Amino acid sequence: MSEAPPPTVSTLRDARVAAVRRLARRAGRLEQGAFLVEGLQGVREALALVESGEEPEALTQLLVTPGAAERHPDLVAQARALRVPLLTVAEPVMARLADTVTPQGLLGVAPLRDRPLVTVLTGEPAPRLVAVLAAVRDPGNAGTVLRTADAAGADAVVLADDAVDPHNPKAVRASVGSVFHLPVVTGMAAAEVVTALRAAGLTVLAADGGDPAARDLDALADAGGLAGPTAWLFGNEAWGLSHDLRALADEVVAVPLHGRAESLNLATAAAVCLYASARGQRSPGGCRAPG
Amino acid sequence: MSEAPPPTVSTLRDARVAAVRRLARRAGRLEQGAFLVEGLQGVREALALVESGEEPEALTQLLVTPGAAERHPDLVAQARALRVPLLTVAEPVMARLADTVTPQGLLGVAPLRDRPLVTVLTGEPAPRLVAVLAAVRDPGNAGTVLRTADAAGADAVVLADDAVDPHNPKAVRASVGSVFHLPVVTGMAAAEVVTALRAAGLTVLAADGGDPAARDLDALADAGGLAGPTAWLFGNEAWGLSHDLRALADEVVAVPLHGRAESLNLATAAAVCLYASARGQRSPGGCRAPG
Repeated sequence: MSEAPPPTVSTLRDARVAAVRRLARRAGRLEQGAFLVEGLQGVREALALVESGEEPEALTQLLVTPGAAERHPDLVAQARALRVPLLTVAEPVMARLADTVTPQGLLGVAPLRDRPLVTVLTGEPAPRLVAVLAAVRDPGNAGTVLRTADAAGADAVVLADDAVDPHNPKAVRASVGSVFHLPVVTGMAAAEVVTALRAAGLTVLAADGGDPAARDLDALADAGGLAGPTAWLFGNEAWGLSHDLRALADEVVAVPLHGRAESLNLATAAAVCLYASARGQRSPGGCRAPG
Repeated sequence: MSEAPPPTVSTLRDARVAAVRRLARRAGRLEQGAFLVEGLQGVREALALVESGEEPEALTQLLVTPGAAERHPDLVAQARALRVPLLTVAEPVMARLADTVTPQGLLGVAPLRDRPLVTVLTGEPAPRLVAVLAAVRDPGNAGTVLRTADAAGADAVVLADDAVDPHNPKAVRASVGSVFHLPVVTGMAAAEVVTALRAAGLTVLAADGGDPAARDLDALADAGGLAGPTAWLFGNEAWGLSHDLRALADEVVAVPLHGRAESLNLATAAAVCLYASARGQRSPGGCRAPG
């Protein structure tokens, strides 16, 4: 670099640092309309959106430690070239801002990513795969499902009924960049979401392994029941989906339990269901033409 | 209860408590040939094995707090009836023995559960689905895959190449009882495991999303490639499978990434692969007869 290195902020009393620190809490995120992006992958994904022009404001600030700036000169140069404001902070300051025990020395600030459901439903092309997490409370689970939904080609993830905030630092980290890849919808009641999804032509399937009357996932796939536009409804880690929500769905579906396990965890069940849909939509009946 | 309540142990200096405490570490587990079973589900599963006569020694000791004994009188009565030695310990003692922040007040001691691979391979009926975790280091991941493998009907899970100990308290907890449901194999080199599995007639598939030459999982399933006895090989969370291990497998397979996510986490990828096998073995070609 030909430029002189910027001064390093070494106190938590710095006003910019104090503002960033407030983003660790939901109240601070709502107040500033922004959230924290911790680690290399998330920062890279946000910068890619800025660079492509797809979302020129996807990253509004980048905090780096001197060590991280040395380890990632390309990334710092990219941020400079894109005119993303840079702030160099001392390691102990970063340690207080970051949620991880061993932060990578990189912390982005990005505008909140939730979008209105109507934007998702009226998008082009029309959505064909949506995951709805009702009352899911663990941020790691929410972030993992976001990543899996992205991988399975889902068009959106909806966090309903007081589910965890997808902008929670642990959720962002577990999503490994996917929070920048597909729209997230927040703040709605799940019942309202189900009604809107059905009105938009999606079949709503409630995943519930504990319901003895549930349809077997493989049988549904074999019958071609996963070929069309589908929304999957997943419930709370401990108590699953409410009776009312199950009743609103077109069908209650269970991942088969072939062994002696009594249940699957939420992220595992979501992975199996979303990938069954991804396959079913690409090969109706779960069976492509042979050869 | 008509019996007088047993005396409550309130010091970590008690010799029985000190022995149990050493089981939190691998050296203590190897020394005593036993491990800790924390929480209700695991203790229940172990007692069920004792009660059924399937494994009369599956639980060799049960530690309870007075509060937990009051909350779970049936479980304590069951342990008494089965002559499992009971030890009542004070809450602060339990808090030091248990790995969780909010322990449920129940802690079992059980003999180590690893079995020789040859026992698995010569079992009746012959194994049709085996998961091999090579150099997987996170106990939560190992326990989650154990639970998923159980649910998918796998016959065994092998932890090879210095993978984490499945008797680690975090792994046991993440398995939610599945450590008592299917055999685990430890202490072998993955290459040796692959050779033995192939000799026993299993097709070995290496799961590797980062290999550009990998076969697409859905295409393999559609072609009937998952109908036979299969072993899945999963690699380390950060660096995946070594070149040598991939070369030893019959085929390298990737879970398709339809969206913009660059990868799946280990437990997610394992869930999708193991459930694809469960379906493929029950409906060759991934397509049951229609109707």
